[in-house]
Amino acid sequence: MTEMELIEKAKEALKYAYVPYSRFRVGAALEASDGTVFTGCNVENSAYPNTYCAERTALVKAVSEGYRKFTRIAIVAEKAMPYPCGACRQSLLEFAPDLEIIVHWNGKTEKACLRDMLSFGFGANAFPMEENGEAE
Amino acid sequence: MTEMELIEKAKEALKYAYVPYSRFRVGAALEASDGTVFTGCNVENSAYPNTYCAERTALVKAVSEGYRKFTRIAIVAEKAMPYPCGACRQSLLEFAPDLEIIVHWNGKTEKACLRDMLSFGFGANAFPMEENGEAE
Amino acid sequence: MTEMELIEKAKEALKYAYVPYSRFRVGAALEASDGTVFTGCNVENSAYPNTYCAERTALVKAVSEGYRKFTRIAIVAEKAMPYPCGACRQSLLEFAPDLEIIVHWNGKTEKACLRDMLSFGFGANAFPMEENGEAE
Amino acid sequence: MTEMELIEKAKEALKYAYVPYSRFRVGAALEASDGTVFTGCNVENSAYPNTYCAERTALVKAVSEGYRKFTRIAIVAEKAMPYPCGACRQSLLEFAPDLEIIVHWNGKTEKACLRDMLSFGFGANAFPMEENGEAE
Repeated sequence: MTEMELIEKAKEALKYAYVPYSRFRVGAALEASDGTVFTGCNVENSAYPNTYCAERTALVKAVSEGYRKFTRIAIVAEKAMPYPCGACRQSLLEFAPDLEIIVHWNGKTEKACLRDMLSFGFGANAFPMEENGEAE
Repeated sequence: MTEMELIEKAKEALKYAYVPYSRFRVGAALEASDGTVFTGCNVENSAYPNTYCAERTALVKAVSEGYRKFTRIAIVAEKAMPYPCGACRQSLLEFAPDLEIIVHWNGKTEKACLRDMLSFGFGANAFPMEENGEAE
Repeated sequence: MTEMELIEKAKEALKYAYVPYSRFRVGAALEASDGTVFTGCNVENSAYPNTYCAERTALVKAVSEGYRKFTRIAIVAEKAMPYPCGACRQSLLEFAPDLEIIVHWNGKTEKACLRDMLSFGFGANAFPMEENGEAE
Repeated sequence: MTEMELIEKAKEALKYAYVPYSRFRVGAALEASDGTVFTGCNVENSAYPNTYCAERTALVKAVSEGYRKFTRIAIVAEKAMPYPCGACRQSLLEFAPDLEIIVHWNGKTEKACLRDMLSFGFGANAFPMEENGEAE
């Protein structure tokens, strides 16, 4: 899938965003290592801490379908450049430290590697690999 | 779908649980008002607050596919009766205060209404409905 | 301390609320078993899931000062009756299932026991007590 | 306060950590712009997503006492180098993008600027400053 196609998938997902509180719609499209794409949108809650970001929606969808290896994620928003929040970076880091992050807004695209967006990440550093040894 | 069939869907989802930290596998199956079922499992993180419960995984999957009305959720675990945590109840309350909660463990099933499991819920009480006025 | 004094403590804490996104100020005052009171306010974040509620702010303050047993919490808001969200109930349940919850808004006060506000709570049910056996 | 004194404050706070699930104790000491120090520890929950990290415990304590400007945070752990998780970085970024992060473990100390540990941070970029305009 081309980068623009992945971005288009994220745009389609954005329309399902549930954002009565922020009115800030975000869509995401996460590509697994075999090319399968999982989309997500943000899902808010009247009690803000219970809000879900688009990136993590896509991630847990994928994991709940048996996928644990990912190559790219495209993130699209309407009002501003949707750099992923720190919590999303942490969640993605667990599965894909080398993930390519593609953010798109207002016709502009920026890219970075997850590892660079969360340098000195907590996770692999802190726990021995054996404890992470769930089979894929 | 019968109640037992919904429970079986939750059991199938449980096998995808990513639980290297707690070893506590949970699966969930959320039924939308048109009968479509969305499944979820728990997805943990080395930084515990970034963990996702099975119930919310199923919920955000459904919302990101355009569903916002739900009738029942079945929740299954291996080690203990999986009553949903408070945060999951809050997330589900946003969309389905009358949701039927079905928990299943070790051959036993218990049922309750979400509204009764989170009495005096924060949400509809606190904000005028207009602010929640996202179209379904 | 009288109930009204505890409510006044919560009101004082409310003024420190950091709420640029919701404009929904909340204050809380948590009473430990020895009578010491810890106050909290809500602390929001541009990425909504990283928001902190007033109740949990008060709770982690207390725990980080060595307190783990609590009797009452008063919660005050400006715009609506501040029933605690599900996530706050879950956090409080870990330490004080019998906590008395006092909500106050617009001159009105309501009270309930935490255990009744999160019936069939996840926690003590799910894990053997030994695993919870941190010394106080 | 010297850097080592700040680290010692974090070490003292670590002893109050409530960690029956991970057994991974963390302490933090956050220095406000006037030199006042607020300490925190991690506070876990049987439902993992409701866990609080030491860094955010220190942050919400400070905010709930009227502090919103910070210069340094020291973070100490027993078992591994305690780089802050992504969610903590996000929470701290809201108030102090230029915060100095000092991590300490096993006699070793590392330092970095928050802005570099969460490059392309979501927040100031995404929302106009006016919306953040709460008075300090």
